[in-house]
Amino acid sequence: MNEALLLQKGQAFLALQPFSMLIGAELHALSPGRCELHVPVAEKILQQNGFVHGGVVSYAADNALTYAGGTVLDWAVVTSEFKINYVRPAIGERLIARAQAVYAGKSQAVCRCDVFVLVNGEEKLCAVAQGTVARLPTNVPAQDTPK
Amino acid sequence: MNEALLLQKGQAFLALQPFSMLIGAELHALSPGRCELHVPVAEKILQQNGFVHGGVVSYAADNALTYAGGTVLDWAVVTSEFKINYVRPAIGERLIARAQAVYAGKSQAVCRCDVFVLVNGEEKLCAVAQGTVARLPTNVPAQDTPK
Amino acid sequence: MNEALLLQKGQAFLALQPFSMLIGAELHALSPGRCELHVPVAEKILQQNGFVHGGVVSYAADNALTYAGGTVLDWAVVTSEFKINYVRPAIGERLIARAQAVYAGKSQAVCRCDVFVLVNGEEKLCAVAQGTVARLPTNVPAQDTPK
Amino acid sequence: MNEALLLQKGQAFLALQPFSMLIGAELHALSPGRCELHVPVAEKILQQNGFVHGGVVSYAADNALTYAGGTVLDWAVVTSEFKINYVRPAIGERLIARAQAVYAGKSQAVCRCDVFVLVNGEEKLCAVAQGTVARLPTNVPAQDTPK
Repeated sequence: MNEALLLQKGQAFLALQPFSMLIGAELHALSPGRCELHVPVAEKILQQNGFVHGGVVSYAADNALTYAGGTVLDWAVVTSEFKINYVRPAIGERLIARAQAVYAGKSQAVCRCDVFVLVNGEEKLCAVAQGTVARLPTNVPAQDTPK
Repeated sequence: MNEALLLQKGQAFLALQPFSMLIGAELHALSPGRCELHVPVAEKILQQNGFVHGGVVSYAADNALTYAGGTVLDWAVVTSEFKINYVRPAIGERLIARAQAVYAGKSQAVCRCDVFVLVNGEEKLCAVAQGTVARLPTNVPAQDTPK
Repeated sequence: MNEALLLQKGQAFLALQPFSMLIGAELHALSPGRCELHVPVAEKILQQNGFVHGGVVSYAADNALTYAGGTVLDWAVVTSEFKINYVRPAIGERLIARAQAVYAGKSQAVCRCDVFVLVNGEEKLCAVAQGTVARLPTNVPAQDTPK
Repeated sequence: MNEALLLQKGQAFLALQPFSMLIGAELHALSPGRCELHVPVAEKILQQNGFVHGGVVSYAADNALTYAGGTVLDWAVVTSEFKINYVRPAIGERLIARAQAVYAGKSQAVCRCDVFVLVNGEEKLCAVAQGTVARLPTNVPAQDTPK
């Protein structure tokens, strides 16, 4: 699939996620193993100090990881786990999350993501993430568990 | 501060977060080192398969961690990093995130969180998280960095 | 399998790991979804300040996670990822890592671990960890990857 | 400090860690925000299948993160938390862990690490890690905690 079609397909998926639409997420680039997802900053995604809420930053990282992994695992995937370090308050005009797959096996990919905030035309790093994207069948629980 | 007042104070903070209000988060319990945060399931917080979006589950974990840590670090805190494992699709009526501090020092607390989804009156575990909550001054960046 | 036999089997596995023998690890308890692994403190496992090296603490967490997951996933498993927070320097006589599975599916289990250091008969928490234990076939890489 | 002196200083620190000497770790490069640490593969660091034990891979990642962070935080540091994804069994002649600081503030740095295994002269990625390196005073516990 060429990259223009890949991006269209990715944008169509995003449009099916009510939560992504609620916060105004936009898929800006998608290629095998790579993704760029934006969230324009608006009042509704802030926390009490006027920064973008950490939950939105982690959403952006999580979703970008899923897309980057999805392109190398044939789409039907979920982020099964991830870790995020917030390094700077997200104050600016737009979140930009760029993720890439650093490893892909048959059923899982390991991806990394950098989240920047765009401030007066300059990108500043505000979070870094790393996680696992898994094909869906491996994530559907089959048996319950000790607690 | 008694727990009723602590909870009121916590709820007042939550009401100052536009993003928490956007997704309908509710603080149900708060005591030293412990927090319970709910998010009623609504169409707007879903992804394309009708599950609660992972970004909302991670928001709930992140915010619950922050509150649990805030109660042992005198409130002005942020979650500086966390990790989450999603273990089951969140399908149900309500997310319930319960966090607790497992360690608190002068400037940081380490907290854990379980996120359940309430289905027909039964709680099912859908994610587990662990992270660091830091007093705000240690998180304000002072110098930039090698990249 | 009764627990005495389960423990014997676990100890036999441990004895096959040259690295576990090198640092003196001991498996003290094993039951479905739970494990307790010890590492007696000795000069050779320290770092420059006389604390147990973080690498040994993370080894203990990692291996305890693997055992806890292995008991619910039929043994042929690896820890595929984990996260650890060090909360206190490990100074004492013995590391005690206790792990438990908090969720188990067909091919993966999510486990948590607390690592204590025994000091004058008292256990002090020195690290907490959380990670994924996977059946081996899902971890054998089949195809390479974008970088 | 020039890089040759920086590397000498780093090697002197490593030599003070009995555990690093036990497993044969070598510091090969050190510059502001960057570190390269090696562990030659030997029988004593393996697990039962002949792979390098995950605990050694995580040691390499942890210690490389500490060095990378130490160079930007004035040396007296510890890794306070990290996360690692194992992506391929470590079978080969030598582990090579390369870490870099992606963000540095006054008291903490966030670093990433790639761990490769050298096989017939070719480097293969076997793990990726991300974590926080903290100046020592912020990590010395001052008060105990809710459990």
